[in-house]
Amino acid sequence: MPAPDLNTIVSLCKRRGFLFQSSEIYGGLESTWDYGPLGVELKNNVKRDWWRANVYDRDDMEGLDAAILMKREVWLYSGHEKTFHDPLVDCKKCRKRFRADLLEPGTGTCPECGGELTEPRQFNLMFRTHMGPVEEEGSRVYLRPETAQGIFVNYANVQTSMRRKLPFGIAQIGKAFRNEIVTGSFIFRTREFEQMEIEYFCKPGEDEKVHNQWVEQRMKWYLELGISSDRIRLYNVPKEDLAHYSKATVDIEYRYPMGWSEIEGIANRTDFDLASHSKSPKDNEGKRKNRHSNVDLTYFDPEKKEHFFPYVVEPSAGVDRIVLALLCEAYGERDTGKGRPRVVLSLNPSLAPIKAAVLPLKRNEPRIVQKAKSVKKRLSASLRAVYDDTGGIGKLYARQDEIGTPFCCTVDFQTLEDDTVTVRDRDTWEQTRVSVEKLSLYLSDRIFKAGYST
Amino acid sequence: MPAPDLNTIVSLCKRRGFLFQSSEIYGGLESTWDYGPLGVELKNNVKRDWWRANVYDRDDMEGLDAAILMKREVWLYSGHEKTFHDPLVDCKKCRKRFRADLLEPGTGTCPECGGELTEPRQFNLMFRTHMGPVEEEGSRVYLRPETAQGIFVNYANVQTSMRRKLPFGIAQIGKAFRNEIVTGSFIFRTREFEQMEIEYFCKPGEDEKVHNQWVEQRMKWYLELGISSDRIRLYNVPKEDLAHYSKATVDIEYRYPMGWSEIEGIANRTDFDLASHSKSPKDNEGKRKNRHSNVDLTYFDPEKKEHFFPYVVEPSAGVDRIVLALLCEAYGERDTGKGRPRVVLSLNPSLAPIKAAVLPLKRNEPRIVQKAKSVKKRLSASLRAVYDDTGGIGKLYARQDEIGTPFCCTVDFQTLEDDTVTVRDRDTWEQTRVSVEKLSLYLSDRIFKAGYST
Repeated sequence: MPAPDLNTIVSLCKRRGFLFQSSEIYGGLESTWDYGPLGVELKNNVKRDWWRANVYDRDDMEGLDAAILMKREVWLYSGHEKTFHDPLVDCKKCRKRFRADLLEPGTGTCPECGGELTEPRQFNLMFRTHMGPVEEEGSRVYLRPETAQGIFVNYANVQTSMRRKLPFGIAQIGKAFRNEIVTGSFIFRTREFEQMEIEYFCKPGEDEKVHNQWVEQRMKWYLELGISSDRIRLYNVPKEDLAHYSKATVDIEYRYPMGWSEIEGIANRTDFDLASHSKSPKDNEGKRKNRHSNVDLTYFDPEKKEHFFPYVVEPSAGVDRIVLALLCEAYGERDTGKGRPRVVLSLNPSLAPIKAAVLPLKRNEPRIVQKAKSVKKRLSASLRAVYDDTGGIGKLYARQDEIGTPFCCTVDFQTLEDDTVTVRDRDTWEQTRVSVEKLSLYLSDRIFKAGYST
Repeated sequence: MPAPDLNTIVSLCKRRGFLFQSSEIYGGLESTWDYGPLGVELKNNVKRDWWRANVYDRDDMEGLDAAILMKREVWLYSGHEKTFHDPLVDCKKCRKRFRADLLEPGTGTCPECGGELTEPRQFNLMFRTHMGPVEEEGSRVYLRPETAQGIFVNYANVQTSMRRKLPFGIAQIGKAFRNEIVTGSFIFRTREFEQMEIEYFCKPGEDEKVHNQWVEQRMKWYLELGISSDRIRLYNVPKEDLAHYSKATVDIEYRYPMGWSEIEGIANRTDFDLASHSKSPKDNEGKRKNRHSNVDLTYFDPEKKEHFFPYVVEPSAGVDRIVLALLCEAYGERDTGKGRPRVVLSLNPSLAPIKAAVLPLKRNEPRIVQKAKSVKKRLSASLRAVYDDTGGIGKLYARQDEIGTPFCCTVDFQTLEDDTVTVRDRDTWEQTRVSVEKLSLYLSDRIFKAGYST
């Protein structure tokens, strides 16, 4: 059973330390969220799994972490300065602002007060700021609205330093910022967000095959994370809705409580970006299309002895959207036979913020407390464990169920005698005695597909 | 032997894919750097080790990941809007700008052209931008100049949701931005940088003991990372140099090629921050010191039945500065007996970007190539391994030495017979035959203190 509505998730997230509204003590910063102690673990686990699948497990990928601040020329030649706009209208009476493209076509009066609306004007979605002490045109920089461009401008450096031949890809995780007029649905659409983007470079002509392969790969990854196949689907973006750089785009959509929405977009960007950022030869009139770049970004094919711009396939996912999908997907309520149903978050164990909670059956029995702390410490060498004694055992189990901890290990009087603990399973509520010596291995086997260190 | 000078490191970093100048193809964005394929791994390994040591291995810590954009009121009450300034002077003749506090006292003329300097004026170091479509006073937000404030404004939410009692701490890793007038020394001082900050909350009166403990803990961590004790030291910041919020600060300094410089600061911030951000009672004139906060941030001590503001000890480290220190520290040159010395990067194995390189002795022998790829795949289940066949074996060893890979595993004809590979040690250049079956365990034992998954 997925989450019945978004408010249930928002409320669970605040109560149990997954997500808090940013600057909440000052009334909150609109549509901005801070990841709490459990949220940061879940998010980091998602990022790590993506990195493992897309960098470590492949032989054709490199990682990157480019700065958020980039030179203005990047956004001139990427097209963002000119085209990354939303049309905006104002109500002349109540002064509210709307996105013209979201109003009914032909709307001339304010949907809120009936006042007259202005003509639409273009509003650029990039956050502007200034580098250095003077706020002048020349010192303007933007917060990147996508991480992708950080990859394109580093393409030549990566290819050369890592001695790469086509096809190969570059993966990056990082923050991006868009000054959206309309935000909402919790962490689904926020002005500050985190992206996981891949730019995969291949020969022209191979791009369609590569595009299909990435769509398949990425879909597989979501299913492996634990997303149910009836709540995820592919959507072929119609030609007329494609971005200016795209030859074809397939979206991966998740069925959130508010409806089917994009979780990842996989675009065939052709050679648009590398050609745009390349130092271009002079045309007949002696002018260059790109007057600022100092690098020729063509690739030399030693077999065919020819230069060409690589084509690019871009699987671009939103970290926050994935976290939200996982929370919605994992949410469930179970009958305890005692009135109110129990919330259980059935996260994929390898993504759970806490893998094992070590609980003392009696918190006023020093020998049990001491033993439980030592078991926690021992487990910590191989997985994320916590010690908790802030309640009775039933309450502690309930809390761990609610935050998705796959296993609770209870230390009791028998532990002091035979060095075994009770291991309780989140999903079945079944209990098994396991020796402390074998506990780490027992849990790791059930939590991780493979023991992975980096 | 540490790095002889910074240029040696800058050049190695670019050549081997650790760091590239940001927006380099457009002439570069001043003092901004992008982490390349190897740099991102080194940086992530440092962050992960810090998180393990300060969150997972302790029972008194929680993690957090707050947004970069925060409400303006946060910076009003933290004191940054009023006091986070550098004094700036302009040359009236050549128009260059200088930080007045870095010039010789009493300097009245430009050190570059001899022109007359203006009176100093205060320049705020926070990057300003606007949220939402209108650039007006009310929509102004700042890029955070430190991650610390994200912790203070979330203190109550974390304490409540995680049921914490004093003492406990909150750890956070994230980007911060300062519009410095003077930058430099590669990634040592940049306008965009990454912090790892802890705010540790304790009872007043216990703060000095806690401060000392953290200084000791943090120093221990650097030594464990592999920093030599003669290139790291403590520096007690003199009373007259303390920041306005600090009762005492101890810096940890590293001896970079350009001299001793701060790598981490550990401050006793007293109750300055929580008191500043707390909804304050009305004074005699009916005014509140904080007119915007909606939360009382005092802590209730159930034993003494009294309310007080917790004191805070803050160990605050710069990720980029640590990465730079590790690169300088690990740098070495070794005699090969064949002319030019070999660069060897003796990184702590657990921090190395690549743990094992699997190399085919002959890249035109399909059976060897296929076997090497399968060994790489097998190793990838437990550590970061790469396959490389882009050169002869001697050249491949040299390249791996230069990027700090602790082990190279060579697949040769004997491998096809007895399923063993040659394992070559980066530091001793000694070679041992190890069976493929035991290879993963053999390497893990030598690389990780404990096999850690999360």
